[in-house]
Amino acid sequence: MKLVAVIMAGGSGTRFWPLSRSSRPKQFLPIAGQKTMFEETVERLLPLLPLENIYTVSGEAQAKMIKELVPQLSKENILVEPQARNTAPSLLLATARVFLEDPTAVVAALPADHVILKPEIFRRKLKAAAAAAADGFLVTFGIPPTYPATAYGYIHYDRNSSVSFEAEPFFHVLSFKEKPDRPLAEKFLASGEYYWNSGMFLWRADAFVSKLEAYAAEWYGYFREILGCLEAKDETRLASVFGHLPVLSIDYALMEKAKGILVCPGDFGWSDVGVWSSLFDLWPKDQADNATRGETVALNARRCLVYNPGKLTALVGAEDLIIVNTESALLVCRRQDDQKLREIIEWLKKSGREEYL
Amino acid sequence: MKLVAVIMAGGSGTRFWPLSRSSRPKQFLPIAGQKTMFEETVERLLPLLPLENIYTVSGEAQAKMIKELVPQLSKENILVEPQARNTAPSLLLATARVFLEDPTAVVAALPADHVILKPEIFRRKLKAAAAAAADGFLVTFGIPPTYPATAYGYIHYDRNSSVSFEAEPFFHVLSFKEKPDRPLAEKFLASGEYYWNSGMFLWRADAFVSKLEAYAAEWYGYFREILGCLEAKDETRLASVFGHLPVLSIDYALMEKAKGILVCPGDFGWSDVGVWSSLFDLWPKDQADNATRGETVALNARRCLVYNPGKLTALVGAEDLIIVNTESALLVCRRQDDQKLREIIEWLKKSGREEYL
Repeated sequence: MKLVAVIMAGGSGTRFWPLSRSSRPKQFLPIAGQKTMFEETVERLLPLLPLENIYTVSGEAQAKMIKELVPQLSKENILVEPQARNTAPSLLLATARVFLEDPTAVVAALPADHVILKPEIFRRKLKAAAAAAADGFLVTFGIPPTYPATAYGYIHYDRNSSVSFEAEPFFHVLSFKEKPDRPLAEKFLASGEYYWNSGMFLWRADAFVSKLEAYAAEWYGYFREILGCLEAKDETRLASVFGHLPVLSIDYALMEKAKGILVCPGDFGWSDVGVWSSLFDLWPKDQADNATRGETVALNARRCLVYNPGKLTALVGAEDLIIVNTESALLVCRRQDDQKLREIIEWLKKSGREEYL
Repeated sequence: MKLVAVIMAGGSGTRFWPLSRSSRPKQFLPIAGQKTMFEETVERLLPLLPLENIYTVSGEAQAKMIKELVPQLSKENILVEPQARNTAPSLLLATARVFLEDPTAVVAALPADHVILKPEIFRRKLKAAAAAAADGFLVTFGIPPTYPATAYGYIHYDRNSSVSFEAEPFFHVLSFKEKPDRPLAEKFLASGEYYWNSGMFLWRADAFVSKLEAYAAEWYGYFREILGCLEAKDETRLASVFGHLPVLSIDYALMEKAKGILVCPGDFGWSDVGVWSSLFDLWPKDQADNATRGETVALNARRCLVYNPGKLTALVGAEDLIIVNTESALLVCRRQDDQKLREIIEWLKKSGREEYL
């Protein structure tokens, strides 16, 4: 069985503003570890599969950064979407590309901007999930929830349906749930029947096509069109097809409708690193619980996250702050308020301050 | 009567670190208003006396900045101390210089780094104080205290001794008091018999010499030596004389010992702008009481002082912070803790981080 990883690197978030910008989204920043999250995603896979089995899918701008970061990656493997239209179009394109080479290959669709603290467990699970996918299942990784998060979708699974691949347990998925409100999230957590939806999926290329045909006829049509473009090597037509695709996630387009989905419990130290405070959890801390990048002198300062490389930062009496200093902008944000950063972004957009985005 | 202002511009503080540096002390920064405090000090005097009656006394480095800021100032008027040795040596040098030209001229010794919010009242008081000095008194400005400050020296005056010059009230000084501890400062405040010592003094040049002779014989000797150097235009000898002077303030060297001192109540909106939070009081504020220099977007942020010109600053949920961002260093300090900044400076010195000072 051939396993192919498709790293989805097209994101363009500003949740790590002012560090992440539309021109350099978080997967291309070394904010979680010493390397960029994209590089770490690639390196995490290499013990399991050769570089030629790693594909990326992204826009033109991100493809450039990918080439710079991993120059050994063949340009054949760097798939460029004509437009960013969420994950369903991306994964149709990538799966069509794999399908052309080997319809029985298993595709592992993996975001480029997630942190996995226990890569060995991840690889063991991924290998087992690939075996399940080779058996014809759609497979997803579910993250055992640790708090009633409202920022993630949930996966409702049948806990009496355990099946095993390569000695790893899998469960049948009952349904996908959108991001819940707080009371519902608390119910999900208490029930013990829900995982967070990690956005990582596996399928055999031909099984994916069958599932589209069976449960998402419209997308099956799109798949055939894309496949036709690839066979003909007609980039102009591909761009035109892409331009008409719905902007939709693969969760909506296929997962929520399909049957025969397994979830693999992903207890491998996953974090989607969605907000600055999630870095606070990841970075090493000094005795006063300050997590810093850049020389910092702290006097009665506690639990601060500082990103200010190349400069000196002096903290006096500061507590529970996120401090990020870049060439053009400085953010000082109370840690508990980092979700509100989007309001700053909205304001910048509304008031035409594109130079800061 | 000829009035000569001597602006003491030799200070080299780091209390406004990281903005003020040893190479650019606060009097040469536009932090209180739109112009530097030195320029504002000069302009405040011009309605009262011509530029040729304004002298400055400072070190070589500050003299350079003075020439740049006020190029019309004659270089004869820019007195350069061979070494920085506190205000007694500075004012001996400056008064000797004035004495040579006109022994009956009145010298007003004024720091370059004070803010005066009501310049018209200041000039009226200064004119009256000059009249008192012309009469042979040593005159000092006392600031009516508004809280039990421990950062200032105090002037104990005889409130039953009011005398009047040009319709302004003056009081006889009983004694000068060093910076008190908090309980003593509270007593001073409650008694109504104390002013803060502003460090602004006036004297007739020849009266100053007589007071030295009468109350500070050692310094009288130094004065004659300096006068001799100036008469002989012997800069080498002046440097050698200066190198042997005690490092002492004029308060200690003369004021605390002399008799015949009047204090003029200085109710002209004085601030010595000693710490960052004093700028918070001076700067205009937005509706959430944030005082900012540089474009700032504030979301649930209150009572912050931001100095970050040329960059965007985003505040989210931040309260009561001092935020100062320069080329090489960033300070984030709780407003109530700005006195502790000196510990940061000490740490930088101790750990050899001279590049930040």
